[in-house]
Amino acid sequence: MDRLTISEVNLARTGAQPSLALKPLSYKQYDAFKSPHSLKYNPSKLSLKHLSVESQQFSGASLKKLATPSPSCPAIQLCTGRPNADHFPWKSFQSGPETVTKSMETPRNDSESNGPYELTSMLDYGHAAGSPQLLRFITEHVELVHNPPYADWGTCLSSGSTSALDISLRIFCNRGDNVICEQFTYAGFLEVADLFGLKTRGIDMDNDGIRPVALRTLLKSWNWVDGDRPHVLYMIPSGQNPTGVSQPAERKAEIYTIAEEYDMIIIEDDPYYFLNLDTGNVGSSPRPESLNNLTPSYVSLDTSGRVVRLDSVSKILAPGLRAGWVTANDSIISKFLSYHEVSSAFVSGPSQLMLIELLDETWGHEGFFNWLQSLSKKYRQRRDIMIEACKAHLPKSLCNWSIPSSGIYIWVQINTEERANYSSVVSTLDTESEDSRLCIENRIQANAFEKGVQVTNGSMFEANTYGNQGLNFRLTFATADEALLYTGVRLFAEAIKEEFNEVSHSAVP
Amino acid sequence: MDRLTISEVNLARTGAQPSLALKPLSYKQYDAFKSPHSLKYNPSKLSLKHLSVESQQFSGASLKKLATPSPSCPAIQLCTGRPNADHFPWKSFQSGPETVTKSMETPRNDSESNGPYELTSMLDYGHAAGSPQLLRFITEHVELVHNPPYADWGTCLSSGSTSALDISLRIFCNRGDNVICEQFTYAGFLEVADLFGLKTRGIDMDNDGIRPVALRTLLKSWNWVDGDRPHVLYMIPSGQNPTGVSQPAERKAEIYTIAEEYDMIIIEDDPYYFLNLDTGNVGSSPRPESLNNLTPSYVSLDTSGRVVRLDSVSKILAPGLRAGWVTANDSIISKFLSYHEVSSAFVSGPSQLMLIELLDETWGHEGFFNWLQSLSKKYRQRRDIMIEACKAHLPKSLCNWSIPSSGIYIWVQINTEERANYSSVVSTLDTESEDSRLCIENRIQANAFEKGVQVTNGSMFEANTYGNQGLNFRLTFATADEALLYTGVRLFAEAIKEEFNEVSHSAVP
Repeated sequence: MDRLTISEVNLARTGAQPSLALKPLSYKQYDAFKSPHSLKYNPSKLSLKHLSVESQQFSGASLKKLATPSPSCPAIQLCTGRPNADHFPWKSFQSGPETVTKSMETPRNDSESNGPYELTSMLDYGHAAGSPQLLRFITEHVELVHNPPYADWGTCLSSGSTSALDISLRIFCNRGDNVICEQFTYAGFLEVADLFGLKTRGIDMDNDGIRPVALRTLLKSWNWVDGDRPHVLYMIPSGQNPTGVSQPAERKAEIYTIAEEYDMIIIEDDPYYFLNLDTGNVGSSPRPESLNNLTPSYVSLDTSGRVVRLDSVSKILAPGLRAGWVTANDSIISKFLSYHEVSSAFVSGPSQLMLIELLDETWGHEGFFNWLQSLSKKYRQRRDIMIEACKAHLPKSLCNWSIPSSGIYIWVQINTEERANYSSVVSTLDTESEDSRLCIENRIQANAFEKGVQVTNGSMFEANTYGNQGLNFRLTFATADEALLYTGVRLFAEAIKEEFNEVSHSAVP
Repeated sequence: MDRLTISEVNLARTGAQPSLALKPLSYKQYDAFKSPHSLKYNPSKLSLKHLSVESQQFSGASLKKLATPSPSCPAIQLCTGRPNADHFPWKSFQSGPETVTKSMETPRNDSESNGPYELTSMLDYGHAAGSPQLLRFITEHVELVHNPPYADWGTCLSSGSTSALDISLRIFCNRGDNVICEQFTYAGFLEVADLFGLKTRGIDMDNDGIRPVALRTLLKSWNWVDGDRPHVLYMIPSGQNPTGVSQPAERKAEIYTIAEEYDMIIIEDDPYYFLNLDTGNVGSSPRPESLNNLTPSYVSLDTSGRVVRLDSVSKILAPGLRAGWVTANDSIISKFLSYHEVSSAFVSGPSQLMLIELLDETWGHEGFFNWLQSLSKKYRQRRDIMIEACKAHLPKSLCNWSIPSSGIYIWVQINTEERANYSSVVSTLDTESEDSRLCIENRIQANAFEKGVQVTNGSMFEANTYGNQGLNFRLTFATADEALLYTGVRLFAEAIKEEFNEVSHSAVP
């Protein structure tokens, strides 16, 4: 076996400190948590030219570094304004996993079961990378799942992927830069890119994600009048937001090759990676081998250290924690830590403690994978209900929708070419006009809302301001109570039909 | 009485919803929590020209706004990718205040005692402004303490003052701008200002903070070759970091007048405001009237809405929560919320829940003020120990130190003019040379560390790169165990004496 396994982790942990002190010793503490397997790779070879003017010389906040002294330092601290632990007003803290989860709990070695975690550590200033105990778990997790094929990879916690994305752009982009993304992409990315004065260039997509030919064409025939050729490629490779598309392994390999050729940074925003809707048969024993069914991530192909992978607990555990993690090469991770020191500082102590109690002390890696598999099954069931409702209620000649193999979104495309055949209530509007397209979209959305269902307009996700982007809606099966999903789609379908005077034909051939 | 009192809050609360849903209805939800007293003031009159190019058109993230729907909205949510509450793996949460605190607990009206807080709300996406229950408490608190004298003030939570400061500069400053601050100031401010390409202009200080004459001179005789005249003034008015100086009411009034005259934004970074070391006699019954002993803040003088006040729980409750709050006019608060939506999103749910349980459900306003007063007493005791140690051990002819009336810092100035009288081990070095000053500073710091005490070099806090800033050290009495404070100062004093060959004179006249 040439990569880390769960049993190796368990073996390594037998002799290890069960509960590490909250404060790591160094910025690259994660190195201590990587297995010997990861030493066999070559170092990354990313050029510093990728860094923004702002981030190039930036090394973080000196006082924040001083505030996390070595636990072994015996000096009397008259140095940083850190309140003495006696002055914290909380003396107890407890969070509990649900019972279903507990029943899946893997029995851990006795030597690893921890006493009550030191509450005061959690209330004190923490480290920009995260507490060692959580960082150890995350580093092991990243190696187990992604096994990045270069030597100097690292991880750090983020205050959620929204924050990590903001920091990614601060690290890599200058005002006026062009950045590449999918034709339809996460609205939050478009908004922060706009805030930073970036120009987004959306690449056409097919059912496997962005089209390599389109990407290569843009880069090859780059019009230098528009500014420098983009050196950042932002993608959501699994259960893409908003289209629901997942990139297969071959597609990722093709795109990665182009990124190598044109020396691009890939920001892999992958919060839906583990919500794998096509595996995990109901009734089968949940096993970590299910990992083998996951499409390899970009970071697992990354021999150069050009991928910045963003993970988030928001979709797989709970968004309220504001936590996630970043995987990238050492020099990029160290920039993340610097930005943490002048922004969110570190992930909330109570959030970290809840994650430690759940992931490290209760579940372990196997338990976490089991949770992800069982969660995927729940989402699969929700997806199936919604797809069934789409089949039953959306007019087929007007609407297309794909069946997502990951994530939580269904993308409904309305076939506007066919629209001319219908006696539309908006027939007076010019179908080619941008205004009329947005007007129809808004009216369908508003009518659906009136009927009692809230859907998201596809125009929110358009990366390009030119070209006809079509009439699209994003539906999610993650939020509503399961019993309401079917009705929700039915009401949405009614709104579409009403828009195109299709009310009487409840089933279109 | 023309301003809000605690008994009025308690009265208003009697009929109010005890536990509000986590999601506010609107961005200006705080308006619902302000008392009728606050309606008597005129609106703010701040010009939009203060906003940075970046922030001017920025209105935040549309999906984040959609993710916090009105609790009364009955529509089926197929809209935002928010996990259904059934899919969160935690089912219990509990945090407890310490027993000392509990004994100070003010009995609350029965109608106000809450059942278990809805855990799922805390695990879900929250609002950029904070949960309504906490926002209500904070809004009431701000009105009780500061009573801002204009109509359209507001509050929102921040992910700590480090994050709020980062966002403040993003809101107000363009690359290349000049910003004004104290001659010695928080190193984190200098570092983030440098990151943003800002030029800091430190204003001379005396024992009451920055000197109004020096501020006026800089502005009046502004050299336009250096760029636009600064329109942002950053200050730490209480227990200043690093000098420990607190601005008296008259000084604040003078500075505010100048800010009015030159139309400047004041960023009031005030984490030590409540650590009032000159009140709260030991043994007296703790009473909220102690508030009357606090120097009025800048925001309490602010008739124009030009003050952005940053509060933090880090020094008064616990830094691990990564939480604080901002007070400013509506239009500025709305920019903060926009930036939250693309960065930290909102304060960690578990952190908010701990604050709600402690502040709103256990202590109430009176209990919180009592805590602050009792905490101040503890810090006063710590300060007194350290001052006593300074008197006993620091060579008086070489060292000056002031006695802080707020905060946690003592600033030790070494009289380098006197130094010539000592047969220094560094006599070969040019005393005027910048290198030799930093060299002496480093050597004292390193020697002190060798002896077992860690102090902070004063040069970390210098806002200006020109002029002789002297040889200074910052000591804090917040962190070390009380029993070690005295020894710490003694060891530091030894290091100073050794530097100046003063070892044999253990007590200098």
